[in-house]
Amino acid sequence: MKEKQQNILIIGAGLCGSLLALRLAQRGYNVSIYEKRPDLRKVDISAGRSINLAFSDRGNKAMKLVGIEHKVKTLCIPMHGRMIHDVHGNTFQSNYSGRANEYINSISRGALNSLLLDEAEKHKNVNIYFNKKCKSVDFEKTTALFKDHHTKDEFVEDADVIIATDGAGSVMRKSYYLAKKFLFSFSQNYLTHGYKELSILPKENSDYKIHKNALHIWPRKSFMLIALPNLDGSFTVTLFLSYNEGEYNFNNLTSEARVLEFFQKEFPDALAVMPNLLDDFFSNPTSPSGTIKCSPWHYKGNTLLMGDAAHAIVPFYGQGMNASFEDVVEFDAILNKYKGNWETVFSEYEKTRKKDTDAIADLAIDNFHEMKDHVANPIFQEKRKIEMALEKEFPNDYSSKYSLVTFNENIGYHEAMLQGRAQDKAILNMLSDGEISLSDDMKSILKKVKTETTTILENNRIAGLQ
Amino acid sequence: MKEKQQNILIIGAGLCGSLLALRLAQRGYNVSIYEKRPDLRKVDISAGRSINLAFSDRGNKAMKLVGIEHKVKTLCIPMHGRMIHDVHGNTFQSNYSGRANEYINSISRGALNSLLLDEAEKHKNVNIYFNKKCKSVDFEKTTALFKDHHTKDEFVEDADVIIATDGAGSVMRKSYYLAKKFLFSFSQNYLTHGYKELSILPKENSDYKIHKNALHIWPRKSFMLIALPNLDGSFTVTLFLSYNEGEYNFNNLTSEARVLEFFQKEFPDALAVMPNLLDDFFSNPTSPSGTIKCSPWHYKGNTLLMGDAAHAIVPFYGQGMNASFEDVVEFDAILNKYKGNWETVFSEYEKTRKKDTDAIADLAIDNFHEMKDHVANPIFQEKRKIEMALEKEFPNDYSSKYSLVTFNENIGYHEAMLQGRAQDKAILNMLSDGEISLSDDMKSILKKVKTETTTILENNRIAGLQ
Repeated sequence: MKEKQQNILIIGAGLCGSLLALRLAQRGYNVSIYEKRPDLRKVDISAGRSINLAFSDRGNKAMKLVGIEHKVKTLCIPMHGRMIHDVHGNTFQSNYSGRANEYINSISRGALNSLLLDEAEKHKNVNIYFNKKCKSVDFEKTTALFKDHHTKDEFVEDADVIIATDGAGSVMRKSYYLAKKFLFSFSQNYLTHGYKELSILPKENSDYKIHKNALHIWPRKSFMLIALPNLDGSFTVTLFLSYNEGEYNFNNLTSEARVLEFFQKEFPDALAVMPNLLDDFFSNPTSPSGTIKCSPWHYKGNTLLMGDAAHAIVPFYGQGMNASFEDVVEFDAILNKYKGNWETVFSEYEKTRKKDTDAIADLAIDNFHEMKDHVANPIFQEKRKIEMALEKEFPNDYSSKYSLVTFNENIGYHEAMLQGRAQDKAILNMLSDGEISLSDDMKSILKKVKTETTTILENNRIAGLQ
Repeated sequence: MKEKQQNILIIGAGLCGSLLALRLAQRGYNVSIYEKRPDLRKVDISAGRSINLAFSDRGNKAMKLVGIEHKVKTLCIPMHGRMIHDVHGNTFQSNYSGRANEYINSISRGALNSLLLDEAEKHKNVNIYFNKKCKSVDFEKTTALFKDHHTKDEFVEDADVIIATDGAGSVMRKSYYLAKKFLFSFSQNYLTHGYKELSILPKENSDYKIHKNALHIWPRKSFMLIALPNLDGSFTVTLFLSYNEGEYNFNNLTSEARVLEFFQKEFPDALAVMPNLLDDFFSNPTSPSGTIKCSPWHYKGNTLLMGDAAHAIVPFYGQGMNASFEDVVEFDAILNKYKGNWETVFSEYEKTRKKDTDAIADLAIDNFHEMKDHVANPIFQEKRKIEMALEKEFPNDYSSKYSLVTFNENIGYHEAMLQGRAQDKAILNMLSDGEISLSDDMKSILKKVKTETTTILENNRIAGLQ
């Protein structure tokens, strides 16, 4: 059979699955997608969670690959930096980069997913089936069992290859785990913090109540509130808070009076623009946040896990969607090299990709602590100021860890992590020891940072830590 | 009800369960143990795996606690260091410590387990039931369902508290995972290497064919062979090898000729004393090796995971059994503080203990690479020589990472890991930079190592890595 006439079955029509379908359709494969939910273009299925997401350069690289960069741009609201809110309502902005063209975007999950589905459906070799829930995958026979939500009928679909992009709760990953046919390394690690989505509604004239072009953070050491803008003038606000530790936690915020007391004490300026707080708080769910890693991602040349199904991460680096989109870019490049042999394609893809998705998973947990705590710490703030100045002064010679991860789509996450962590350590230690300060000549700071970073990386290498 | 009249049900009569039963019986509780296997004192149930184990100071602390240190001593064969065998059959010994009284022991799993069962059974408040396999645990009702191996009958047992010491494949841990009643973080990570047990039989006069008092290692970078002595003059030999990578691997060592070729090429001196190699190789199983971590270890005050059921580790630090024994010591200390409130006992135990079992899990993986690779590396060998000299010269002032982990039972694994890794990094980097060498005055080396170690720990602290 010709490679292009092969039938590829994709489980899950979310962000990763619909992009993958689009790309594989462009390459000429016959693609069927099965999605358990209804068509989100016809039915409102938002459930008070993850309404908007951070979209940045790695995600955009994927949009370029499939040729829809300009359509996506119209959905984006640029966020140039973090707007930090202290407990008295004072704010200061800390940019994401010293280079003016480097910023992240807030984007609606639903609008972007709709666009990807529309673009995929333009290809006559793509068929999308909604309300079909995958129950299990037989990865020896390369078949999947589905149940139709309306008729309740169960049916089996056969394919040359099955790719599961069915998210953090992946049914196919569960089949791998339960079958015990091969050694399956697997981890699910939950944070002790849950999250709840709230909102800041627009002004009556549809204007934004707080600064539009920033990611707002109310860092409070052991918990935080964040807000990202939507195109309609509202903000989606998320509270990250422990389930059961600390004076206020999700388990004891059970009365209206106590929720108001908590916001009045910790987030008075946010409370002032959230008259709908109590409605949101008591009608929206509290959800857990966790990291999932596993290996292998594939079984022979039959089945493959991709996106959150293979590597779900916590949301704090704004890279979850971007990493899943980058999966498709990496997979496409591997296909260019090895197409014709699915087993090689799958194993080379995992070999190339897994170190990077492991790295962004760890970086995302680091950033949880950075956002809720470190951003309010003077030495971390001084580091950020130095890095902004270095990026501005030497745009081609310096990129912070944040920039390496977020704006350097041609550097893998793993390399960005090693380099970025070494730079952070170098700057923090030199600041602490008084070896550099913001008033120094920037050229001398750059040189010292580079030298110290190289030493740190080399010392780690010698000690066998890398 | 009086604390002492409470009924404690233990699932699993292995090393950890039988020690725990003994200690709880000494404290006056009513203890029932249910074990799925037959009584190992009556039936030979060794299945070609993990016949002997490394026993050291943390394990011995537990033996002291229950008063059987001297009985255990008679089962021990001291191993003073690693005997490294190169590919030409040359050997050199690298001691575990510069202090003469610090060594590890080879001990028979079966003999030690038998002793612990005998000691537990001396208490009339202990009942042990064999051939009763746990099928599931209801951790709300504090009951466990068992199946009798002979009668095939199923029955439910009730208790005030259930403690599962049922090993890496724990049924209770699986109940936690499947019930989805609470957020259960869980990981199982397999090495890409499997292991197979082989043997070096005694001489005709029952003497040892190779040096008795050492742990023998044949390090070959990507794989290795090790051997530990038994009291009968034999050695249990273990081959650690990739399942599917490299020229020789478990998947392609399928013919007698190929196994002989492999041993002839890589382990000629071992092959010379293993005339029974092919029988062992093809009759013993190839088993995987993995790390298991999870949290929480307990559900309310009803049930608790302990030993391998809570934290299975790879065998390369010789700490698996010692860590499980230390669990009992730590649990006993927590009982002293909080007895009367099981929920507090369980949660405080996990809070105190988990950082240490996580640390030894990571250290054990590090040691896999150290044993198969680094021990044959000149700079690591030089580091070991310096550390032996420091320990000999300054017995009260210096302990290597290995000593901190193995011989310092009053320092937790986590602290041993942080201090030990910093020391390793300090010495390796100073050796590499020519800042220290074996010919230097030892007092000056000690000072430099201490200063550099402090700097490394402080720099890590500032960078927020700890």
